[in-house]
Amino acid sequence: MYLYLIRHGIAMEPDPLASDRIANDEARSLTKLGRKKVEQVAQRLEKLEVTFELIMTSPLVRAQQTADILIDNQIITRCEVNSDLKPMGDLHQWLTNWNARSDVRNLSTLALVGHEPNLSQWAELLIFGEVGDRLILKKGGIIGLKFADDRIAIGTAQLWCLLPPKLII
Amino acid sequence: MYLYLIRHGIAMEPDPLASDRIANDEARSLTKLGRKKVEQVAQRLEKLEVTFELIMTSPLVRAQQTADILIDNQIITRCEVNSDLKPMGDLHQWLTNWNARSDVRNLSTLALVGHEPNLSQWAELLIFGEVGDRLILKKGGIIGLKFADDRIAIGTAQLWCLLPPKLII
Repeated sequence: MYLYLIRHGIAMEPDPLASDRIANDEARSLTKLGRKKVEQVAQRLEKLEVTFELIMTSPLVRAQQTADILIDNQIITRCEVNSDLKPMGDLHQWLTNWNARSDVRNLSTLALVGHEPNLSQWAELLIFGEVGDRLILKKGGIIGLKFADDRIAIGTAQLWCLLPPKLII
Repeated sequence: MYLYLIRHGIAMEPDPLASDRIANDEARSLTKLGRKKVEQVAQRLEKLEVTFELIMTSPLVRAQQTADILIDNQIITRCEVNSDLKPMGDLHQWLTNWNARSDVRNLSTLALVGHEPNLSQWAELLIFGEVGDRLILKKGGIIGLKFADDRIAIGTAQLWCLLPPKLII
């Protein structure tokens, strides 16, 4: 199966004067430019016939908005909000939850929309079994992993694409 | 600096009846489709303003033909044929020769055109310091590595793009 890790687009800066900094961060929206670039990425994916059977997104606004744009450009998509995809989310926790599900057997393409440095670190764990901060994932960028079968496990992935948005839009 | 590792395009099959199998392999040309796809990749790179100050290519015909197509689509390019880029070429040997040169200081973009599994293994060595056969590099595909300065060394690169040709053409 193919697993795509997609970083949200360019978002508004945090408000340094916000009284609740976590709530302020969680509510940050995509900027106009961020929205435009994600739309261009989504249109390009559609043209390339890169589709996702299921999209799981971080609950943060900038991630959900990114997922919404992807969904607008895909023909068949299920979307779920998943709190393990928040910033600082834990891959092992996500994997435990994922592997306990019976409704996602035989899925061939899954996309996770989230944040850095999480996503590139998750990719490194899935590929190499350890984190080295060696993958550069730009906002709106995509990491594509390939697994030998439909099981997602640490240290078993191959990297088949790493796409900075500027190289595909 | 940026180092791009580019795999040659689709080539003619080896002749199973050839009396000299090495010479036969070295002489294999790009197919019509292989040439077309590399041309599309090269045109896309030009459009994206991805340029190379120096291209080094394996001496094998299919690699040199790939390099020639890239050169045809770049404005300023120096090209060198380098035997360390042959199949089974050794990264350490190439690095020793590279680091001994005084004429390539301050180069910011270098492309190497060669073969698999060499190129993806070289990339893994430059990124992680070890080989795990975890990167998928298709014919006509590109691995883009970023170094903190102009020194290319084992275990010091970040991966900034991995481009299967079908995702950029």
